[in-house]
Amino acid sequence: MSVYAKPVEVLIDELGRLPGIGPKSAQRIAFHILKADAVDARRLAEAVMSMKENVSFCERCFNVAEGPECTICTDPDRNRHLLCVVEEPKDISAIEKTGAYAGLYHVLLGSINPLEGVGPDQLKIKELAHRVASEDITEVILCTNPNLEGETTASFIASKVLSPFGITVSRLASGLPVGGDLEYADELTLGRALEGRNQIGS
Amino acid sequence: MSVYAKPVEVLIDELGRLPGIGPKSAQRIAFHILKADAVDARRLAEAVMSMKENVSFCERCFNVAEGPECTICTDPDRNRHLLCVVEEPKDISAIEKTGAYAGLYHVLLGSINPLEGVGPDQLKIKELAHRVASEDITEVILCTNPNLEGETTASFIASKVLSPFGITVSRLASGLPVGGDLEYADELTLGRALEGRNQIGS
Repeated sequence: MSVYAKPVEVLIDELGRLPGIGPKSAQRIAFHILKADAVDARRLAEAVMSMKENVSFCERCFNVAEGPECTICTDPDRNRHLLCVVEEPKDISAIEKTGAYAGLYHVLLGSINPLEGVGPDQLKIKELAHRVASEDITEVILCTNPNLEGETTASFIASKVLSPFGITVSRLASGLPVGGDLEYADELTLGRALEGRNQIGS
Repeated sequence: MSVYAKPVEVLIDELGRLPGIGPKSAQRIAFHILKADAVDARRLAEAVMSMKENVSFCERCFNVAEGPECTICTDPDRNRHLLCVVEEPKDISAIEKTGAYAGLYHVLLGSINPLEGVGPDQLKIKELAHRVASEDITEVILCTNPNLEGETTASFIASKVLSPFGITVSRLASGLPVGGDLEYADELTLGRALEGRNQIGS
């Protein structure tokens, strides 16, 4: 028997479909909304609808965008010869926060993952090849995640997609995190840090 | 500089206000909604508004209710002499699942917590006294949580609120969880289990 009123059950069910929200969190959030002011609940509902209605993916780079193209693609101050390839729009936010990059982006909207049925055709890789062929790009930096799927995706793009264009293709450096401690580094990361060592004196 | 479109930032901000959702989860959920079908997003937004518009607290017991009284208070098959006092409506759901209780409930909507400024006046304790005085109740079972705030609340209600009425007041038993293991029980719980031991033979 359901002890909650029907609209509460419906909301708990809808919240439970969101990523990272289990039945207990969904219940807690639903009761939070029930106790909250009606204006707060309305603001949340309107934020969901407003995003869905006004935001889509940039036609050029697949970042999120309010119009046909995103704020980065339409920014005249960005270096249009540099292209950074990432898996998701949220990765752009991480890179922008470093302040170390001023080029354009290309979002794949995922990574190659055969176990989950995601191959190159499900990603925006054809669109990447088209951009490299038609825009004046001199370097592509592959910034996919440093895990199995991200490395596979980067290798695939470097060897099968970008090699015919004769442009510079680079990959994010792997190594020790800044502020880290040798003792606690895992052997794979430490191995990569050794391989990628930089000369600092003659 | 914000790299996301404004409506995305607004939604991330609104989601981040919900309990148990930090900035990273809020971002992940926002991108999930962005990728999802528009009908799914609309269903979520409508579930929020529909609950807010159609559900409030039961006038009698402060459980969630679609009308003036909740489904339990209006159920003619419940034992109207038994009253179970809980902190939150979700506790009713936990007790109902046991199938071991068929009386009525009274929700306090919180517990006494001086550090957070919650005293007896912020809870539905006056309403509890009024019900015990006006309804034909013979036993009140205090089912607040077995933590500091819950125990304080139960003691307060038992000694200051219910003692004049001369009715039976009981408290949930503390003890070892079923399926648990003596070795891993904390000493407080084990102590309570010893104090509350039940005779099983002569």
